[in-house]
Amino acid sequence: MGRWEPNARGRLEEAALELFAEHGYDQTTVAQIADRAGLTERTFYRHFADKREVLFGGGTVLEEALAAAVREAPAEAAPYDVVAEALVRAASFLDEQRRDHAPRRQAVIEAHAELRERELGKMAAWVSTLADGLRERGVEPRLADLIAETGVAVFRTAFATWVTDTRAQDLRSLLREAFADLRAATAG
Amino acid sequence: MGRWEPNARGRLEEAALELFAEHGYDQTTVAQIADRAGLTERTFYRHFADKREVLFGGGTVLEEALAAAVREAPAEAAPYDVVAEALVRAASFLDEQRRDHAPRRQAVIEAHAELRERELGKMAAWVSTLADGLRERGVEPRLADLIAETGVAVFRTAFATWVTDTRAQDLRSLLREAFADLRAATAG
Repeated sequence: MGRWEPNARGRLEEAALELFAEHGYDQTTVAQIADRAGLTERTFYRHFADKREVLFGGGTVLEEALAAAVREAPAEAAPYDVVAEALVRAASFLDEQRRDHAPRRQAVIEAHAELRERELGKMAAWVSTLADGLRERGVEPRLADLIAETGVAVFRTAFATWVTDTRAQDLRSLLREAFADLRAATAG
Repeated sequence: MGRWEPNARGRLEEAALELFAEHGYDQTTVAQIADRAGLTERTFYRHFADKREVLFGGGTVLEEALAAAVREAPAEAAPYDVVAEALVRAASFLDEQRRDHAPRRQAVIEAHAELRERELGKMAAWVSTLADGLRERGVEPRLADLIAETGVAVFRTAFATWVTDTRAQDLRSLLREAFADLRAATAG
């Protein structure tokens, strides 16, 4: 990643999203992505394992952020708040991206069964990460699963608003609002 | 559906689950299913549109039960309780099946990407049905989505317990418990 390739990763992502939108995901090759970005295939593979990882490459970072947030939450924090804060932390990574990135990525994923599966697998991994983290904090296993699964459902709702309405607030705020709304709704 | 074919539907379902477990979903044909059940292919197609629908045929009934439950809930019921009761009603349909049906069905689905997609599509349809029903009751759209999505997440957790532990209580009770647990957890 020498100085002659400033923001190669971002350029490759942008090129890939453009080409996926123009020609479809299946019809786009790594060579075309590299070419559009003005970079070599070799540079592509320095940043991504394969074409699919252009869409999912950020997943590991988010998962690690979730795990760390659960681990580092104050001992006295309630499990629901621990999960809410962990997801808000993950959301803040997405808020730092270009505002049009997530909606365009989402459109590619939704048009493609294999990518939808991969995305759902990612969400399932988030549930596991959160549930494992809660269990390590001493939360009873079934309750840990319930709160983790619920938390990711709340995330999904806020995320759907965020990607469909690009004038909406940042994802972090939408998420905080959703967790508060659910708390109010369950209070009866 | 003459008298000479008692419980044809149930026999076809049982034969299909046996064959899917023995040879895999892809390797099983409708002819084999009918044969194992001691029925004709013609009878098969009187009950199911295709092989996949042996696994998903009950979906419409459950979706209609959900919609009806939301519609018929008392006007003063809180949205969270409306969704909880609707899902408990759907659960009671599953409780009426043979206790080993759902775990075996689940094993087939989890082994097969296309079927997992179909199952997730079904869950997404439940979310839409519940959210639409809540909106018709005057619940604000974003809150309707949030509660519907959360409700189905709670269902998924209870369902996972129910299919992995066949000595667990009935699904209805697990579900009621989970909704109460989430209420307690969000109360802090």
